[in-house]
Amino acid sequence: MPVLKEQLDAAFSPRVVAVVGARKFDNYVWLRNMSDFKGTLYSVQINPDDIVGIEEMGIPNFKSLVEIPEPVDYVVVAVPRRAVPFVLKDAVEKGVKTMHMFTSGFAESGHEEAIQMQQQIAETAREAGILVIGPNCMGVFNPHVGMRFGEGQNVDYIGGASVISQSGAHASAMTQGLQASGVGVNMTVSFGNAILLDSPDLLQYFADDPATNVICAYIEGPKDGQRFFQALREVAPKKPVVLWKGGQTDAGRRSAASHTGSLAGSIEIWNAGARQAGAIRADSLQEVIDAAKMLTYLGPVTGDRVGIIGGSGGQSVSMSDEFSWADLRVPTLSEPTLEKMAEFFQLVGASYFNPVDIGGINRSNLETILDLLTGDPNVDVVAMMRSVQRGRRSAEEIASELKQYGEARDKSGKPMMAMFWTPVPYPDNEPMEETDAILRDLGIPTFPSPSRAARALRKVVDYHRFHSGMDG
Amino acid sequence: MPVLKEQLDAAFSPRVVAVVGARKFDNYVWLRNMSDFKGTLYSVQINPDDIVGIEEMGIPNFKSLVEIPEPVDYVVVAVPRRAVPFVLKDAVEKGVKTMHMFTSGFAESGHEEAIQMQQQIAETAREAGILVIGPNCMGVFNPHVGMRFGEGQNVDYIGGASVISQSGAHASAMTQGLQASGVGVNMTVSFGNAILLDSPDLLQYFADDPATNVICAYIEGPKDGQRFFQALREVAPKKPVVLWKGGQTDAGRRSAASHTGSLAGSIEIWNAGARQAGAIRADSLQEVIDAAKMLTYLGPVTGDRVGIIGGSGGQSVSMSDEFSWADLRVPTLSEPTLEKMAEFFQLVGASYFNPVDIGGINRSNLETILDLLTGDPNVDVVAMMRSVQRGRRSAEEIASELKQYGEARDKSGKPMMAMFWTPVPYPDNEPMEETDAILRDLGIPTFPSPSRAARALRKVVDYHRFHSGMDG
Repeated sequence: MPVLKEQLDAAFSPRVVAVVGARKFDNYVWLRNMSDFKGTLYSVQINPDDIVGIEEMGIPNFKSLVEIPEPVDYVVVAVPRRAVPFVLKDAVEKGVKTMHMFTSGFAESGHEEAIQMQQQIAETAREAGILVIGPNCMGVFNPHVGMRFGEGQNVDYIGGASVISQSGAHASAMTQGLQASGVGVNMTVSFGNAILLDSPDLLQYFADDPATNVICAYIEGPKDGQRFFQALREVAPKKPVVLWKGGQTDAGRRSAASHTGSLAGSIEIWNAGARQAGAIRADSLQEVIDAAKMLTYLGPVTGDRVGIIGGSGGQSVSMSDEFSWADLRVPTLSEPTLEKMAEFFQLVGASYFNPVDIGGINRSNLETILDLLTGDPNVDVVAMMRSVQRGRRSAEEIASELKQYGEARDKSGKPMMAMFWTPVPYPDNEPMEETDAILRDLGIPTFPSPSRAARALRKVVDYHRFHSGMDG
Repeated sequence: MPVLKEQLDAAFSPRVVAVVGARKFDNYVWLRNMSDFKGTLYSVQINPDDIVGIEEMGIPNFKSLVEIPEPVDYVVVAVPRRAVPFVLKDAVEKGVKTMHMFTSGFAESGHEEAIQMQQQIAETAREAGILVIGPNCMGVFNPHVGMRFGEGQNVDYIGGASVISQSGAHASAMTQGLQASGVGVNMTVSFGNAILLDSPDLLQYFADDPATNVICAYIEGPKDGQRFFQALREVAPKKPVVLWKGGQTDAGRRSAASHTGSLAGSIEIWNAGARQAGAIRADSLQEVIDAAKMLTYLGPVTGDRVGIIGGSGGQSVSMSDEFSWADLRVPTLSEPTLEKMAEFFQLVGASYFNPVDIGGINRSNLETILDLLTGDPNVDVVAMMRSVQRGRRSAEEIASELKQYGEARDKSGKPMMAMFWTPVPYPDNEPMEETDAILRDLGIPTFPSPSRAARALRKVVDYHRFHSGMDG
């Protein structure tokens, strides 16, 4: 049964939240997760040893949900499995709207008793009109209202990605990764065993959410495959959906069954469904982040002819291979461009047919060359390679050079990205991070290698082509 | 015509080196590259403006090679193209053994005159018995005698990888990358247009070199394909050859032609030749480093059944997928192991079928679990996942935990590797680098992601199986 938009609006923007089962053992993590919550926070705990610390935090504690002196919108359930039915009973009595069940050990355990308990919870909640998120999940990160489910999440930074995930670890990693990469997160929902709230509900919700520009999804197995793919077909034309499927292999499926109790169907059917919907496939955390970054920074790019700037001989050969392997084109520049390029390049002996090697080029020529490359009719997208030269140049010099790239991009209107090339990633971390920050401000996304840039670009070009009717 | 072992012995261990054409313009880079050279260094330069700085460095300068008052073994040629024939004439007169020609602008330029000049140089040198390295290349890094071709190369750290490369940038990157990853480099030869010294000569030389454990090669196009593949077939059974082919695609081939003047043959023939020889294919800088690291640290591993430790639910699903995609197996552990694991895991509710989730495990149980996993008859290789938890635990705690892994590896005799899992690589750089250093001391290689670990492991297992007669 689909979950209504109103139910989700209420679930994601609660005014009053109660955490049931916060414990000294884990340093009251579920209460601490709510430290920036903009509404009212209550605790429910009966163990005197745990209550001491809760009261020290200044959070009002009650012995049961029903004792809380005002209506409760949202309950975090962090009690042992055997106590869940009692909390649910209280929640029904209290008229709670939403329950996030962190508690695990249900269907994913494979034990008959636990499976039955999960079914009973689902039935009781459904009858009472309570929306259950989970069980066996991390719940909601919503920076708009200051809700967190982990300490790495920044509630002061709101972006355009909405994340939905059956895995709490992946939900957390995607959220942190998207924040760290300058995409930013609008909301994250970890929904585990999905007994009531499932991926189709969330896809449809975020498709119609004006604050969402891209949906990143980690799915092990939707309950109802047909409903999932129907939702995907409706949603993908409205918002790009980056789809990470867990359990694509036999070993992965076995692992998924004991993780969220998901029974993944055939991967061929999944692949066909995703392709027909025009979703963006990603097969790892890195691919999700890369695709979301490319989507966010590049806008609706449909051209697949890449102009590459930077890199000496062997690097140019390898970048040409990498982009070609990703099924993108690295065309020779047009004749008029090549004629003008020759004027600058006859002295340095570097190659300029594309990739354009700017190693021996001085700054005043760089501007001209950038204008020629970005303006070339054979080029749709520009990829700049950054050899990380630690300590060799000042931050100001680098910033001023990168500004020239931003200007050429603005003048030509052609999307631009950057890719790092380093053999020593640990020592080069600092200059890469600095360059990344400068380029991010210029609206140019960076990728750790040509291969990752190329693969992400292909995904994004495919998405925009599909939905503009250029392919498929 | 093959180059003799004696010629290469002499070339790589010169007693007297002369740099012709060191210039103020590039801060005398070719003289500075020799700052740690253990033999005698001379300069040849006629421009008074350049000579001043050379003499300030305390390096004896002469107007020509023939004026140098002792026999010269090795000459670095860094003069403009038009001056090369004159330097060569002097070298013949002086009886020089080896010339490294840094100078470029020959066949790779595509100009008829330059192609003829290159042919003339090759003929003259051959007749005089001079071995030419290049032209259009960076030459030799040999830490044994203190020869460098770039500032990132550490002459105080000698390892077992010998690097041969038609690209100077890739030669430099592979050298730095192998040094940074704890593989270490025995020698690197960048040989550019390969007019006399070509890849088959170098493959055969390093195959018989007792200091070489692995050969890493970047090749755009061998002059004589038949000779190359014959050499590869002879060499690969003696030493693993990690082969990075530049110009595998149309755009890459075009770029390679203007880089080293290489005319790459059909990629199908290349692939078949590499497969028949049992070489290890790598398609990027990262893949070369990863494969060399895995080869060096893991020894002759032939088993493909991976036991994975670390990582929570979603991560376990994704790691199972990643290793399966790399055509490795992630088997369920044996019944006796599972029965014993159940004792520890019933309380934490984590999964232990493989991958084994140790998130909620205390330290005393870790030892038992590690012994169970490494001792399981279904497991050939152990891969540990490290979620990078910046600042959460002390360096001592982490070191002491990792030591337990090393002990379990030693007890079981099964090869072990580690892979990082982080959504925020820039901020996690420091803890990753620290963990990498600790694990390196324990003889456990680290990889930045499960995907890279899995792909490298598959390559190495394939290599050892092929040459032990298990496959192919």
